[in-house]
Amino acid sequence: MTNPTVHVRQLERYMTTTLQAVGLPADDAHTVAQLMAEADLQGSDGHGVIRLPQYCKRIQAGGVNTRPQIRVEQERAATALIHGDNGMGHLVMKRAAELAIAKARQSGMAWVGSHFSNHAGPASLYARMALEHDMIGLYFAVGNANHLPPWGGLSMLLSTNPIAAAIPAGEEAPIVLDMATTVAAYGKVKAKAQRGEMMPEGWMMDRLGQPLLDPQRSEEGFLLPIGGYKGYGLALVVGLLAGTLNGAAMGKDVVDFNHDVHSVTDTGQAIAIVDPAAFGEVSHFKQQVDVLIRDIRNSERIPGVDRIWLPGEQSHARRAAYLREGIPIPSALMQTLDRLSEQLNVPTLSATAP
Amino acid sequence: MTNPTVHVRQLERYMTTTLQAVGLPADDAHTVAQLMAEADLQGSDGHGVIRLPQYCKRIQAGGVNTRPQIRVEQERAATALIHGDNGMGHLVMKRAAELAIAKARQSGMAWVGSHFSNHAGPASLYARMALEHDMIGLYFAVGNANHLPPWGGLSMLLSTNPIAAAIPAGEEAPIVLDMATTVAAYGKVKAKAQRGEMMPEGWMMDRLGQPLLDPQRSEEGFLLPIGGYKGYGLALVVGLLAGTLNGAAMGKDVVDFNHDVHSVTDTGQAIAIVDPAAFGEVSHFKQQVDVLIRDIRNSERIPGVDRIWLPGEQSHARRAAYLREGIPIPSALMQTLDRLSEQLNVPTLSATAP
Repeated sequence: MTNPTVHVRQLERYMTTTLQAVGLPADDAHTVAQLMAEADLQGSDGHGVIRLPQYCKRIQAGGVNTRPQIRVEQERAATALIHGDNGMGHLVMKRAAELAIAKARQSGMAWVGSHFSNHAGPASLYARMALEHDMIGLYFAVGNANHLPPWGGLSMLLSTNPIAAAIPAGEEAPIVLDMATTVAAYGKVKAKAQRGEMMPEGWMMDRLGQPLLDPQRSEEGFLLPIGGYKGYGLALVVGLLAGTLNGAAMGKDVVDFNHDVHSVTDTGQAIAIVDPAAFGEVSHFKQQVDVLIRDIRNSERIPGVDRIWLPGEQSHARRAAYLREGIPIPSALMQTLDRLSEQLNVPTLSATAP
Repeated sequence: MTNPTVHVRQLERYMTTTLQAVGLPADDAHTVAQLMAEADLQGSDGHGVIRLPQYCKRIQAGGVNTRPQIRVEQERAATALIHGDNGMGHLVMKRAAELAIAKARQSGMAWVGSHFSNHAGPASLYARMALEHDMIGLYFAVGNANHLPPWGGLSMLLSTNPIAAAIPAGEEAPIVLDMATTVAAYGKVKAKAQRGEMMPEGWMMDRLGQPLLDPQRSEEGFLLPIGGYKGYGLALVVGLLAGTLNGAAMGKDVVDFNHDVHSVTDTGQAIAIVDPAAFGEVSHFKQQVDVLIRDIRNSERIPGVDRIWLPGEQSHARRAAYLREGIPIPSALMQTLDRLSEQLNVPTLSATAP
């Protein structure tokens, strides 16, 4: 039995209606829904429509400001600090990305940070905004729940603080990296638990520092950072750049938004945009990116490996397929969404016109 | 038998004389020697005086331009591209860092890239230059030899492309991260081989994709990236930002400077400086960094772990100890340096006044 599929516009329309029903203004609901649908379209299915019930719950609980005054608090030629006024993170980071792109066009590059923002979906969504302007996007965020202790420690003072980078190519698909600083994201642990599978060694450890393999016991352990102390260092630095620098929550002040729908998260994020035109001919740069991509793709493979992928290439292909064939929605998720629609008295996803 | 120690000024004076003997002008020799000695002082002993014989060999072979016209080729308010004219990388990146700091003071942040540069020592050396200005430094470089294949591949198209970040604190030592994007640096593999030890699983793999444990066989295998495909993605993105963006060598064009002392390496590096003053009160920021550092240091530890370290903390402590007690020089290295001194007819390190 394959999962039912929905058209991206259908998904977008459904989420717009739902977000309006819990109190977002029409324009804002549409912007958030568009970005969430884009997350599903690129295959970041842990950050798209699956988050809708949680977002609605938080909005209904008053944990998100539905009429935020998102504003530039500090500004220089190449920097800005945006106060998100506890609005939906998607609105805050879209504004931040647009401002950074405009500034980079003038100054060659720009760095825009946020505080009092909220969860904004997949990191790559905002880094990718640079691509249509032939620019490079980098994105850093403080994750919305701490799952990572410092190296050698047991207190969960760090999140999986993600990094994204989007780099335009010429004829090839752009290079898009979107990674948590832990070996596995928490969503992957949950998926293993649902399928009744064990985790490979290296994903998690227990409170004695021993490998934890049973995902059912994940609450007793911790995610492990990539490269051991290196990933710990990366998670910390990303948190300092995206959180502390912006005066946003970091470390023990991070609110676990999975378990607390009321408290202001004071989420910090940062987007950096670099304009390749400030370093030379853009067409030449994109051509060189193509050369590198092809050298990598066509290079010798380990016996048994069918293909060497570039970061973002599979996601790019998936996006094209989902645009043609629709986005698959697992039936368990569809049931959850149907219950939400019933509660809010809005049309279900299936009943929304494609 | 403990290693003999030398005073940092002694080391600096010795390297200045030696670099002058192979043809660097006095000022440039002194600048390079200062930065190399600083590398030893902070414990980056794979990037300090140990490189002197190799640098001398390359300079003597004409592989480095001893009279470079290091110049700004492209410039905007927040960016610059520096042409290193094949000069010593230390000279190029010191210039780049100084320019980036000056620009960041005006624009809030700046990004300066280089091409036609050379190996410049440890990444953290340049990121750290931001600290005395109460700024944040980030550094990216294309490594000077390819040891890393793309994920699933066998062709060494990538280097261990390092990342460094330096973040000022208040009363605490600054946070300084300096990491290769591979699990182990090549120097660590060589050290294991010298000690006759096996490598842990996860450092290297062989051409069949199987773990390679014997460091004597390292030529038959490859370094592994941190977090598998994530580290591959990071190494690639760092290479694109530090290399391709600047029109510098990347991928198959990278010259292995361990085996080729003649060819122009066209090394690419990038330094980004962020001024916390553009985001709020600097004193408040540094105070918050202190709070985070102390929360982490004082947090609960895995049984058996004596202390939780912050990135750069051990290096900071080592620097203070080496300033007091001198920098240890292993006897094998001392012998190599003595042979170099004899060849060049300059005073040996031991004969140089402290």
